[in-house]
Amino acid sequence: MEREFSRRQCLLLLAGAMGTASGVMHAARAFGVSPEVTPHAPIHLQPISGRAPHVLILGAGISGLVAAYELKRAGYRCTVLEASHRAGGRNLTLRHGDRIDELGSEQICQFDNQPNLYFNPGPARIPAEHTGVMHYCRELQVPLQFFCNYNRNCYAQDDKAFNGKPIRLGEFHASLRGFMAELMNKSLLSPGQLDAPFDEIDKERLRAFLHAYGELQEDGKYRGGERTGLSTSILELPKFKGPLDFKSLLASEYCFGAMHFAEIEDQGPAMMTPVGGMDRIVTHFLQHVGSDVSLGAIVNRIQLTDAGVRVTYRQNNQSHTINADVCLNCIPTHLVHAIENNFPADYAHALTLPERGKLVKIGLQARERFWEKDKIYGGISWTNQDITQIWYPEHGTFMAKGVLLGAYSWVPEIVDRIAAMSPSARIELAIQQGERLHANYRQHIETGVSVCWHRMNHLLGCGSIWTEETYNQGYKRLQAPAGRHYMMGDQMATLIGWQEGAVRSAWHALAHVQERVLQGEIA
Amino acid sequence: MEREFSRRQCLLLLAGAMGTASGVMHAARAFGVSPEVTPHAPIHLQPISGRAPHVLILGAGISGLVAAYELKRAGYRCTVLEASHRAGGRNLTLRHGDRIDELGSEQICQFDNQPNLYFNPGPARIPAEHTGVMHYCRELQVPLQFFCNYNRNCYAQDDKAFNGKPIRLGEFHASLRGFMAELMNKSLLSPGQLDAPFDEIDKERLRAFLHAYGELQEDGKYRGGERTGLSTSILELPKFKGPLDFKSLLASEYCFGAMHFAEIEDQGPAMMTPVGGMDRIVTHFLQHVGSDVSLGAIVNRIQLTDAGVRVTYRQNNQSHTINADVCLNCIPTHLVHAIENNFPADYAHALTLPERGKLVKIGLQARERFWEKDKIYGGISWTNQDITQIWYPEHGTFMAKGVLLGAYSWVPEIVDRIAAMSPSARIELAIQQGERLHANYRQHIETGVSVCWHRMNHLLGCGSIWTEETYNQGYKRLQAPAGRHYMMGDQMATLIGWQEGAVRSAWHALAHVQERVLQGEIA
Repeated sequence: MEREFSRRQCLLLLAGAMGTASGVMHAARAFGVSPEVTPHAPIHLQPISGRAPHVLILGAGISGLVAAYELKRAGYRCTVLEASHRAGGRNLTLRHGDRIDELGSEQICQFDNQPNLYFNPGPARIPAEHTGVMHYCRELQVPLQFFCNYNRNCYAQDDKAFNGKPIRLGEFHASLRGFMAELMNKSLLSPGQLDAPFDEIDKERLRAFLHAYGELQEDGKYRGGERTGLSTSILELPKFKGPLDFKSLLASEYCFGAMHFAEIEDQGPAMMTPVGGMDRIVTHFLQHVGSDVSLGAIVNRIQLTDAGVRVTYRQNNQSHTINADVCLNCIPTHLVHAIENNFPADYAHALTLPERGKLVKIGLQARERFWEKDKIYGGISWTNQDITQIWYPEHGTFMAKGVLLGAYSWVPEIVDRIAAMSPSARIELAIQQGERLHANYRQHIETGVSVCWHRMNHLLGCGSIWTEETYNQGYKRLQAPAGRHYMMGDQMATLIGWQEGAVRSAWHALAHVQERVLQGEIA
Repeated sequence: MEREFSRRQCLLLLAGAMGTASGVMHAARAFGVSPEVTPHAPIHLQPISGRAPHVLILGAGISGLVAAYELKRAGYRCTVLEASHRAGGRNLTLRHGDRIDELGSEQICQFDNQPNLYFNPGPARIPAEHTGVMHYCRELQVPLQFFCNYNRNCYAQDDKAFNGKPIRLGEFHASLRGFMAELMNKSLLSPGQLDAPFDEIDKERLRAFLHAYGELQEDGKYRGGERTGLSTSILELPKFKGPLDFKSLLASEYCFGAMHFAEIEDQGPAMMTPVGGMDRIVTHFLQHVGSDVSLGAIVNRIQLTDAGVRVTYRQNNQSHTINADVCLNCIPTHLVHAIENNFPADYAHALTLPERGKLVKIGLQARERFWEKDKIYGGISWTNQDITQIWYPEHGTFMAKGVLLGAYSWVPEIVDRIAAMSPSARIELAIQQGERLHANYRQHIETGVSVCWHRMNHLLGCGSIWTEETYNQGYKRLQAPAGRHYMMGDQMATLIGWQEGAVRSAWHALAHVQERVLQGEIA
């Protein structure tokens, strides 16, 4: 009953970086077995007894930090080289004064200097399914709070439906469910229509289910109800709002994609996020391994040697060389294959295989939390304009100001359009398009930042995409080492662009390294 | 397009205290108009200029506290008499050492003395729709956090389905949606079946929608997908879990009610709850009006007089009398009509009209947060056993211990069964039935408390139910004053058992009182 991961789905995932498949690691299991066993328990390396191998880690993103943390705890010697001015990779939280190192469009974040005014332009949420990331949040005591992907009070806006007026998601969903149930109930009444595989008892239960599912009235009609909501004061005899127009609902693009987004295994509740910004995870890792991380170190040569790996890098205009027993490489594959190296041909080829995603996020500081007056606390509004989404912050409720996500786009053509603009033009675009969803939007917005990941220095891309074809061509080859050199990062997982892939790729490499250490191959 | 509130629905609401209609106050509005205007803005009484009227408030629940807060701010003199040993009414948070004042079954809460170990046996969540309660949370600066009614990793358990095994809600929903869409798509293919009111274009859009809605494959079949989740590691070529069995899904009672619960206007996200317990609202009110609240004061006579209201009460074994210009009475109606009074006959009769709901909640302290290991953070599991629900705490993530809601029942027969047990037998029941959902449940539970609201001293009931019949017979009469005597509380709203009703009833009475003050009738 399983189906193959299709090329189409891979591209959807690419298009998504949101509609991603999940990181749940349990083997195929009997339905409903409870509690589930997560077979891939967190890695716990055995302490090194003799000489401590020296492990060189290239990149201080999540996979590099996980590796350094685990290795150091087991007694290995670690060096982490990071090209950027900061650790974390795409785990980034922007606050007052932060520099956005986009090539050609450097920005300084102008948010007020307040603890609740921050923005996560990279990962911003953690699904409960991602037990690797959750493990480190627990272990490092990173406080979490709920994150809300679906909030019924947010809006869907499409110029082709409802004259472009934004529609509350709750009313949209309730109305469409109601009409679907009404139609299906009608077809149940027609003899012969839904006979197989149903007997009469099933049909009666199905009918009862449809009435509950669609809030149908006794005559089988849908006329709105508790889910579209009250039209009266709670001090009066209650009346409910009627449903939205069925044809208009189907005219909105929202119903073909975004509407179902929060049903996905790793996009549905409960989603969590660190209190104070996603980079709290980085901060907590750095409390343990910060002294091993060297910033501004740009690798320009990787040589496999008989005894390990020799890496040359530049830092502060000087060239340095490190000979390490093992190298764990988290640099994006498309940058690695342009670094001078002596990798075997098949390995070098495999590095060229994954496609690289693009995405842009825009953060906007609002002088007033106008969305709270509109009964919105967290969640996502959707529009078929280029900005695609508006997110309302899950933190800082009732405070004076707040930072919205004003755009989140992942379709390559859209990202290219936005990336071609100056930073100020991007903000203007976000404001203009946001005005279709919120009255007086422009007056509320004070300042903003944009992050186009494929233009960010030392990254030049976002999540990696392995299609079925490229997976079969070279994924396993790249997952295996070249000598003592291992590739890591979320790019070494089939799950696209999630931190969980970074964690799991590190565990995979570490387990392999440990095996060789235990066998005396690395000493 | 509105429908009347039926007797059946009222009873459903009674059965619910969960499936309640919402407190949204806006008038019937054009669809999609944004932003909405909430016409019932928070009350703001005009400051008293001359002699300050003395207002006697009976009951320090939410409606009494709201009234005292607003009156005091405007310069009125207030006295609040509260029969219980504590303020808050059904807004109650239980912690280490708290006394549960149930008649005949007094309990002392044995939770460990830790800030995160608390339990809200009364209201536990605030929907964004409840703009009155949210207004006070904002104004009194009560920190809020998200509350999660629907979490896809929680379980549905029914002995008649899946051999009684608990099923993850996300897989349940995804599978049933998939099969529904498949059936409906099939009926679309039959000419004549769904013709009216559709033309061919609509049918194409409907077909596309169904494919998205049900995650159908190109052949129109449902075989599981991203919503049932991965069956493989994220380091492999992904495969998805297949769907659950359709007949078994329909065999579960979950699909007829609980499945749709979080779609209701005031049960869907975003729900919020105060950080630290629901009684933080009470605590914050008391910072302003605490000195006006007198505890342990049991009213035994209410006399309407020409100049106001004379109330006699006992406190510390002494009888006291207060003559007040106005009396705002929040005592449950079924207790008021047994207090000696001289109300007009129609008013006294109206007091007898509302039915009174029952409900029981059980809180269980767990020595380990086993649900987090099972990927559950917040949310509700459902069972058709008497305990009905298990809630996982929305607070205290990653801490050592936690307090679960181990039962929440509102069907009168079930509440009666549980209320007839000793407190320890109730805990045993909650453990036994919880074992159907979680392995090793018994070993995890350390201690528990139960609150049967209809046996709680000075309350003897839970939410009030106004049916269409009783509403027409006497609701408006009771909403109007008897002389200078006003009834308040959530009992004076058609919304059952929510704090929002308490707030709105207070605003309603205060507006009326102010009108009389401004007209010189009360001076």
